[in-house]
Amino acid sequence: MNDLLKPHERIDDLQLNDLKIIQNPKGFCFGIDAVLLANFVDLKKNAKIVDLGTGTGIIPILLAGKSSTSHITALEIQEKVADMAKRSVKLNSLEDRIHILQMDLKNALEELPVNGFDVVTSNPPYMHPKGLLNPQDTKSISRHEVKCELEDVIRIASRLLKHWGKFFMVHRPQRLVDIMYYCRQYKLEPKQIRFIHPTYGKKPNLLLLECRKAAMPELKVLDPLHVYDQDGSYTKEIYEIYGRRILEKGEDEAE
Amino acid sequence: MNDLLKPHERIDDLQLNDLKIIQNPKGFCFGIDAVLLANFVDLKKNAKIVDLGTGTGIIPILLAGKSSTSHITALEIQEKVADMAKRSVKLNSLEDRIHILQMDLKNALEELPVNGFDVVTSNPPYMHPKGLLNPQDTKSISRHEVKCELEDVIRIASRLLKHWGKFFMVHRPQRLVDIMYYCRQYKLEPKQIRFIHPTYGKKPNLLLLECRKAAMPELKVLDPLHVYDQDGSYTKEIYEIYGRRILEKGEDEAE
Repeated sequence: MNDLLKPHERIDDLQLNDLKIIQNPKGFCFGIDAVLLANFVDLKKNAKIVDLGTGTGIIPILLAGKSSTSHITALEIQEKVADMAKRSVKLNSLEDRIHILQMDLKNALEELPVNGFDVVTSNPPYMHPKGLLNPQDTKSISRHEVKCELEDVIRIASRLLKHWGKFFMVHRPQRLVDIMYYCRQYKLEPKQIRFIHPTYGKKPNLLLLECRKAAMPELKVLDPLHVYDQDGSYTKEIYEIYGRRILEKGEDEAE
Repeated sequence: MNDLLKPHERIDDLQLNDLKIIQNPKGFCFGIDAVLLANFVDLKKNAKIVDLGTGTGIIPILLAGKSSTSHITALEIQEKVADMAKRSVKLNSLEDRIHILQMDLKNALEELPVNGFDVVTSNPPYMHPKGLLNPQDTKSISRHEVKCELEDVIRIASRLLKHWGKFFMVHRPQRLVDIMYYCRQYKLEPKQIRFIHPTYGKKPNLLLLECRKAAMPELKVLDPLHVYDQDGSYTKEIYEIYGRRILEKGEDEAE
């Protein structure tokens, strides 16, 4: 396997069906957001999926692990990151099921079938670019809207989805108005939202959203998901999502 | 005081500066929503306020109780309810500070100064009218969008507010998309939102929203407000908002 790994990279075990991922600890590594999003997505059999801004490919790999679907396309603009994702797909022998395309998602409508997907997922950059960001910096591009804006993601997702298809996104509560406004504008009606709170009584710092293309308005706000119990340990639900070993590792690190 | 009271009506003590309110127990009585909204509103000195769809006048009376402002206008379409609100204002000797107008809020722009208010408040009907509602029924009109729609409330609120003025509303989380969409559309940028949860771990059933006219986008999601502790008693925060005596009465009733 070592021929897939470049200097400064490491292989992390995803604790799900023996899946692994290549990451560069000095670059942008996947976080709890991606894991929660992949867990939040519900898939029909053989759903055709596209992941917008896939980064290291964490979401496609987790979705492949939790389903039997063999039609996952994933877009990543950054050449080195897309290459890392491709090598992770190979590492897991998922080349038949996951296709990583190195491209700007703003060109997706020229390359991919419009109205062609059952599911679109995205864990887009959360932050508005403020001040001078290095447009070459991998972390900046993954975290800030340097290469695409939230509106682009929602607009493209809507065009790629079939009528009645589903869009799943993880984002920050501070962007709630933008999210709701653009989703409604581009006919991706928000149907379910779940706020993630670090702990009981504290404001949410993430949200999971499910939209349906061309659906009637009616939003279900789900029970909140709390990450930590009041005693500082992970909640039972997070334990179930993450798997026991990762958490034990996390707990060791926290001590 | 008894000459202000009609048959079937009763006077309830608001536990705030000796304020009282006339209600008809067979009609629509104020709920926790109105109390939470009045508590959520922050007022500059001598703010000019208008309350859209005031019902029994609970919000203006509570706002008069917590501030020294003497410019509160309140609109109520239902003749009998508006009359009850007027009598409550008289009962509290607030005629110099609160003006109840019996009128359709959709005509507000003809009767009230456009761009003339610092603050607009509203506890509008929450539900879309479904099936056949009795258009004469006081409870239906207070609970369902029979006489006005959410979009009307937001549009009118925006026109009545000065540049930079604030709009405060209590509503249901199911309507979050509509709320965000219309607020953005009518230039009432949502700045703060607080979700009210019946208890820890359960989904919210109310939301408090503060918008600012013509402000830049950036939403603060506040810490959640929980009504009941896990042992079934009111939380400390609800205790502080409601005042001790009302709660003790509520607890007796719950037993």
